[in-house]
Amino acid sequence: MAKRVAIVGAGVSGLASIKCCLEEGLEPTCFERSDDLGGLWRFTEHVEEGRASLYKSVVSNSCKEMSCYSDFPFPEDYPNYVPNSQFLDYLKMYADRFSLLKSIQFKTTVFSITKCQDFNVSGQWEVVTLHEGKQESAIFDAVMVCTGFLTNPHLPLGCFPGIKTFKGQYFHSRQYKHPDIFKDKRVLVVGMGNSGTDIAVEASHVAKKVFLSTTGGAWVISRVFDSGYPWDMVFTTRFQNFIRNSLPTPIVTWLVAKKMNSWFNHANYGLVPKDRIQLKEPVLNDELPGRIITGKVFIRPSIKEVKENSVVFGNAHNTPSEEPIDVIVFATGYTFAFPFLDESVVKVEDGQASLYKYIFPAHLQKPTLAVIGLIKPLGSMLPTGETQARYTVQVFKGVIKLPPTSVMIKEVNERKENKHNGFGLCYCKALQADYITYIDDLLTSINAKPNLFSLLLTDPLLALTMFFGPYSPYQFRLTGPGKWKGARNAIMTQWDRTFKVTKTRIVQESSSPFESLLKLFAVLALLVSVFLIFL
Amino acid sequence: MAKRVAIVGAGVSGLASIKCCLEEGLEPTCFERSDDLGGLWRFTEHVEEGRASLYKSVVSNSCKEMSCYSDFPFPEDYPNYVPNSQFLDYLKMYADRFSLLKSIQFKTTVFSITKCQDFNVSGQWEVVTLHEGKQESAIFDAVMVCTGFLTNPHLPLGCFPGIKTFKGQYFHSRQYKHPDIFKDKRVLVVGMGNSGTDIAVEASHVAKKVFLSTTGGAWVISRVFDSGYPWDMVFTTRFQNFIRNSLPTPIVTWLVAKKMNSWFNHANYGLVPKDRIQLKEPVLNDELPGRIITGKVFIRPSIKEVKENSVVFGNAHNTPSEEPIDVIVFATGYTFAFPFLDESVVKVEDGQASLYKYIFPAHLQKPTLAVIGLIKPLGSMLPTGETQARYTVQVFKGVIKLPPTSVMIKEVNERKENKHNGFGLCYCKALQADYITYIDDLLTSINAKPNLFSLLLTDPLLALTMFFGPYSPYQFRLTGPGKWKGARNAIMTQWDRTFKVTKTRIVQESSSPFESLLKLFAVLALLVSVFLIFL
Repeated sequence: MAKRVAIVGAGVSGLASIKCCLEEGLEPTCFERSDDLGGLWRFTEHVEEGRASLYKSVVSNSCKEMSCYSDFPFPEDYPNYVPNSQFLDYLKMYADRFSLLKSIQFKTTVFSITKCQDFNVSGQWEVVTLHEGKQESAIFDAVMVCTGFLTNPHLPLGCFPGIKTFKGQYFHSRQYKHPDIFKDKRVLVVGMGNSGTDIAVEASHVAKKVFLSTTGGAWVISRVFDSGYPWDMVFTTRFQNFIRNSLPTPIVTWLVAKKMNSWFNHANYGLVPKDRIQLKEPVLNDELPGRIITGKVFIRPSIKEVKENSVVFGNAHNTPSEEPIDVIVFATGYTFAFPFLDESVVKVEDGQASLYKYIFPAHLQKPTLAVIGLIKPLGSMLPTGETQARYTVQVFKGVIKLPPTSVMIKEVNERKENKHNGFGLCYCKALQADYITYIDDLLTSINAKPNLFSLLLTDPLLALTMFFGPYSPYQFRLTGPGKWKGARNAIMTQWDRTFKVTKTRIVQESSSPFESLLKLFAVLALLVSVFLIFL
Repeated sequence: MAKRVAIVGAGVSGLASIKCCLEEGLEPTCFERSDDLGGLWRFTEHVEEGRASLYKSVVSNSCKEMSCYSDFPFPEDYPNYVPNSQFLDYLKMYADRFSLLKSIQFKTTVFSITKCQDFNVSGQWEVVTLHEGKQESAIFDAVMVCTGFLTNPHLPLGCFPGIKTFKGQYFHSRQYKHPDIFKDKRVLVVGMGNSGTDIAVEASHVAKKVFLSTTGGAWVISRVFDSGYPWDMVFTTRFQNFIRNSLPTPIVTWLVAKKMNSWFNHANYGLVPKDRIQLKEPVLNDELPGRIITGKVFIRPSIKEVKENSVVFGNAHNTPSEEPIDVIVFATGYTFAFPFLDESVVKVEDGQASLYKYIFPAHLQKPTLAVIGLIKPLGSMLPTGETQARYTVQVFKGVIKLPPTSVMIKEVNERKENKHNGFGLCYCKALQADYITYIDDLLTSINAKPNLFSLLLTDPLLALTMFFGPYSPYQFRLTGPGKWKGARNAIMTQWDRTFKVTKTRIVQESSSPFESLLKLFAVLALLVSVFLIFL
């Protein structure tokens, strides 16, 4: 009999998990709290308890060629960075294409997941669910937790002295849906992650005045990267990663800072990160510097005190320290938790869960519970969750054996210590990992990592594209379990799809022979001058 | 008795003209059609006949250090690119500071300006005005026409076959005020000048779908230029201009194209200009590529046909040629005219007036009529108009003698031969001049051009700042008539004022000795490798 797998949540990771179970002959049952799939990506006008909440304008931070399921490219006519409604459509197409809906029970909340009495032998779990007021219980051979980390708002009001006296409106960014509420108001957004920055920029189109307060600062990059290429198709390549990981951390940090400052000098815009050694996830925003330079968004340091109708900033520079404020938005992030699991199964401490490879609770006697998508790699979430699911299913099937508990606990503890070997980028390992290294590691475990050296002999064009070009998810399907025969073609045509949607007006290149000649002349002159200078 | 000067219009050029007249002992009377000063820069919710019309969100395209009156810097706390309401405030401060209001007659329309019978001797003009229904007439010794070129919309409906059958809404961009009207509509903006691009980008925040149709394409640059410096403070320097003007056109064209493509490759975004030899004014927009890459604005080629509810595009690439459309905005530019002047005084033909130095009608017997601000330099309008006014006043006073009519007509004709024709935005070459060359020429005429060579000996820091730094208007007041003693200081502190408004959060530079050492090592390694390569 096929193993029965309970999957909690039908978002991007939940859907990938269902598919992986189905294609590996397991029997998945996905419990989804709301009445539709899509998780995070399903926008609703009202915030729903227990589900991540989007604002209307959210656009993917990772481009379509880098954030798709590895065997299911986005439709060709999709924009490079996909707005949330189209992203949801894509997830529905995916569910449809691989017949995932039949495995999902909607409006079903997971109440508890507990070890069966014979867990040490069977590894089974009792899953208690609530569906329209009715409680049900069932036994599963394994569990995949796909609830994400963007549901529990983190609102540390204690850090803002005087907030209780504030007479204006304030709320967590999770409550934000449309910019209309800011019309003609003086708005303060606290926190400069992706949401905070997006909200400040959006508010600035309608508000009277917008302040963005940041303690730590951040590197801000644009989706429109070098020469207009999607940022992650340029940044996330094996070649670049190899370079980054081979150099000592201070040099990499310096190079990264140089790169990050090439769009605009962060110091001149009051945004420079406080901690330039440990890389925080960069903020993706195409408009922020333009809004600052036109006086639509004002950057401020951390809050010192909140008064009845104003806010006082600490260490304000070049500017009055107190500003009248009508609305405060706390974009102070999220915490995560697993209310349906006992602490003895997964313990969350200091924003970190003790998960081997960010997936398996390290101390469980049986590897039959996995957390999918609880990681923030410097890359796309979607293929990360999918690869985790592919790996997990092989563990569930017994094809892959996990190392002894002691080894797993050691890995987790090392991560907690956040030790750094002195090479490559330095980031907080609690939730962050090097995207390429992490996924390659999982692929290696399931024997699905393509061998670039042998490819270089048999298919050099492909090998070079894979090494120097974007680390697109199709590469994860060239070989091994779940191999997809469309993978090679998808890799070789990734740039075509990228340009197809933007190159919608063609102009014949002017080919004046005079101009070409002069170009040649210019190049020659340059070469000669270089030659003369150095010899 | 002081010469009496009639000034038509109290916009940026009109105000500068009043001031120049006052400080040179002339007696100006400015006739302003509306009830307030500011011209173009005064936003109103409704379009006013005979006055340029702004949309609510307009922000200056030239930064505050480059677009101020040469002896009146913007307030320090103004943003680098000034929103229209603040720009108007600045103009009011200027009028206040130099007591210009007493010379302005508001709500007074100039009906006609005609030569007096003894014009060949006296050079005088009869100016007939209308004020609250009452016609008045007065004799003036000279006239300065400051009506601008953005009042008469150019709407060539004949170029859009089928437009009469279109059942949706259509209007000229001049009518546009707020993006609300586009809510959930399918919008087509025709024409890719600054207005068209702004409108398309703004519409894309609320509309269902936005198309931007362009025949000729354009270079799009961001206010946030190299490393985030204001574009014109980097682009408009004597040094850069020297380089550009010294190289053969094809090489300059190629270099400019390279520079313009450094933000994003225009070909990949469907924006590449058709005519890459004759540089059209680049479009200033900080958001367009970001809106294209996120699927919020779609670029389309020229319109082939308009149908009842849709538009067909010619030579559509990668995309369906027909799109359903609800609203069409024609951002097809403006024409200019002087309804109060007889054709024998100034004739406008093919978007060009026969004006010597873009100011004086070339064939008039007496140089007592000047047109101020009828030029589109690749730089800021405001100091251009101001310098024209300073020059003009010296001509009116007889300090400067214009060359013989034949010489002036020759100059005008040479410019005419250089004109380009064909449909497109009306910023035709007939109105464009090289900013630095043009202003330096006027300054030379009035003996106010600073001599950089002698400055290099007496004040080398200033000379170098003036040569390599921004061509800021304070430089026009270092010497000669209208010399301002604050000029040197204003030049030397221009960057301080630029950063003051954005550098509002300071982070101590991390000074890890290890990092510094490694930086040094990296530089040394680089030098050694360069050395090894070339020797």
